[in-house]
Amino acid sequence: MIPAGHLERLTRLRSQFPAWSLDAFLITDLNNIRYLTGFSGSDGVLIIGPGDHFHLCIDGRYTTQAKRETAGVELIHMTDHVDAITSVLHKKSHGVVGFEDSSMTVNLYEKLKKKNEHVTFREMSPALELLRAGKTEEELTCIQKAAHIAGDALEDILPSIRAGICEKDIALELEYQMRKQGAEKAAFEIIAASGENSALPHARAGLRKIAPGDTLVIDYGAVYKGYHSDETCTFFIEKVESDLRKVYGLVKESHDRAIEAVCAGVPAAEIDRIARDIITEKGWGSHFTHGTGHGVGLSVHEAPRISAKAEQTLTEGMVITIEPGIYLPSHWGIRIEDTVCVTSGQAKILTKMSKELTVLG
Amino acid sequence: MIPAGHLERLTRLRSQFPAWSLDAFLITDLNNIRYLTGFSGSDGVLIIGPGDHFHLCIDGRYTTQAKRETAGVELIHMTDHVDAITSVLHKKSHGVVGFEDSSMTVNLYEKLKKKNEHVTFREMSPALELLRAGKTEEELTCIQKAAHIAGDALEDILPSIRAGICEKDIALELEYQMRKQGAEKAAFEIIAASGENSALPHARAGLRKIAPGDTLVIDYGAVYKGYHSDETCTFFIEKVESDLRKVYGLVKESHDRAIEAVCAGVPAAEIDRIARDIITEKGWGSHFTHGTGHGVGLSVHEAPRISAKAEQTLTEGMVITIEPGIYLPSHWGIRIEDTVCVTSGQAKILTKMSKELTVLG
Repeated sequence: MIPAGHLERLTRLRSQFPAWSLDAFLITDLNNIRYLTGFSGSDGVLIIGPGDHFHLCIDGRYTTQAKRETAGVELIHMTDHVDAITSVLHKKSHGVVGFEDSSMTVNLYEKLKKKNEHVTFREMSPALELLRAGKTEEELTCIQKAAHIAGDALEDILPSIRAGICEKDIALELEYQMRKQGAEKAAFEIIAASGENSALPHARAGLRKIAPGDTLVIDYGAVYKGYHSDETCTFFIEKVESDLRKVYGLVKESHDRAIEAVCAGVPAAEIDRIARDIITEKGWGSHFTHGTGHGVGLSVHEAPRISAKAEQTLTEGMVITIEPGIYLPSHWGIRIEDTVCVTSGQAKILTKMSKELTVLG
Repeated sequence: MIPAGHLERLTRLRSQFPAWSLDAFLITDLNNIRYLTGFSGSDGVLIIGPGDHFHLCIDGRYTTQAKRETAGVELIHMTDHVDAITSVLHKKSHGVVGFEDSSMTVNLYEKLKKKNEHVTFREMSPALELLRAGKTEEELTCIQKAAHIAGDALEDILPSIRAGICEKDIALELEYQMRKQGAEKAAFEIIAASGENSALPHARAGLRKIAPGDTLVIDYGAVYKGYHSDETCTFFIEKVESDLRKVYGLVKESHDRAIEAVCAGVPAAEIDRIARDIITEKGWGSHFTHGTGHGVGLSVHEAPRISAKAEQTLTEGMVITIEPGIYLPSHWGIRIEDTVCVTSGQAKILTKMSKELTVLG
């Protein structure tokens, strides 16, 4: 679907086999398969190496789709995962085979080991974690397009958001508009959380009707050609109390300073520290209950994490969210989130909506 | 959410531990956790036994939700899966601990083994597979409600389906109406496949515009209180050629005879044979390229399978689909599907739409 250099990605990954002492690599994570081959089906196994061999095992449902989406990959018809993988491994007499321990189930692993006693399986998930973190221009274009579809849809429905409307209907109308405007689907279940519900960072849009004075957190994103966007706007309904105006300003300050600090070479943990310190200094530290952000791409959550424990350093082309929030349980929540691309200078903001304080209705 | 006897389910499962020689059971499949406790969050681990102990490990995002949804379960705050599970296991000095090998990743399993050398972990997925197959009255009500929401929504959009409309818009309008009418979400990505696209059993709704003479396969379902429905209607646009009319009649014959045969005590494979024989006798056997059906409940695909290889026997309360289909590659596809409940007499059809040949537009 995406005219990116899949074969080049496969070849680059394979070129690392000597350093990893691998003869082959079994890829079961579907987003990694899509990243490496273009195949976007919901089941399949990719086997890389040795030599020039790339085998993609798929079942009969996906024959037509795989032919259309891939190039340079040998398609293997699979009726059983273990049998298909084993037949490829036997043919090649592989010695050491890497696999994705973070996505492979114990059931499949035990069956594979039993049928391939000559093979040493090696857990390789950590090595793959950063595979997709640095985005190409084409990937950035897709993420930005997703963000713009989502932002345009939100702008379209803003006039209809007023006291009396229920959360579920906001989420539904927003998703409908995103898909009307070309999104494949919503990037995740849209959060539209008002009043006390907004105090839950992962609230589900429900039957609560928004009321004057409410905060309204809308956390949403679109998918375009497989790529996700992620953005959060917090609105106020009809009016905003002065203490909430202050908290909004504080979250925005945290968000703005963190984005200003995003630059290739900066440790991810440092970004989290900058965002967190601003909130902590004003006494709200214990109310900022989650990490500052995460990578976005073929998954809505992928490497790198932006948190106190993060060990990665930002590099050019990474796409990450910056999303500080302050939550007062049972009362309100305020979160401001943009998706940005890391460059050697100022980060490029890919999401679209203004983050100035906005009163609706 | 569902006022079912979760504690009774937990107790019943625990009562089987002596027969299984288990001291405890680690549940990681989220649908099984929901089935056993009512908790519907997207992350958590349930540890059953020994004695009266039921521990549900959840992270901070789900504290409020878990308190609201569960009863009789001790909530453990988890920041790390391995640490949380290990602390529960250590406290109890468990000997043999069952786990779900079909859902647990190798990564989690290896870490657990390393931290719990005194524990013998036992693969138990096959024993759990049928856990949710027999439905209670409350579960049946939810599935039927989901099916009726879905059917009403399809009826509402039928008048708008005519030549010139694209598949994607049919799928989008149908999902929108389902959610407007109370569905939590679509049970799966709705298939609206027309003309040659309908020849692919798992086609994605795309930009193809439906045209006079097309078959139009709509495979759809809703989710209500976590429970799924699943139904397929095949329509004809403006006209139907006599050979397609015959094929439709053959698929409907297969569908009807299979549903008539559904009864407690009948092997699932026998239902598949009945559906398949009718199609094979007329020379279309090689064009019926999938199983006859599958169980439906908290997952849209669950036990039992209805296929030639199925080993299960139908029992009262099972909810299954019957969905024979005939596909002529590059030309057309016809599939007819209902979701039915197994009883000691005639199966009860839970889905709503008529399966008489229908010409639209």
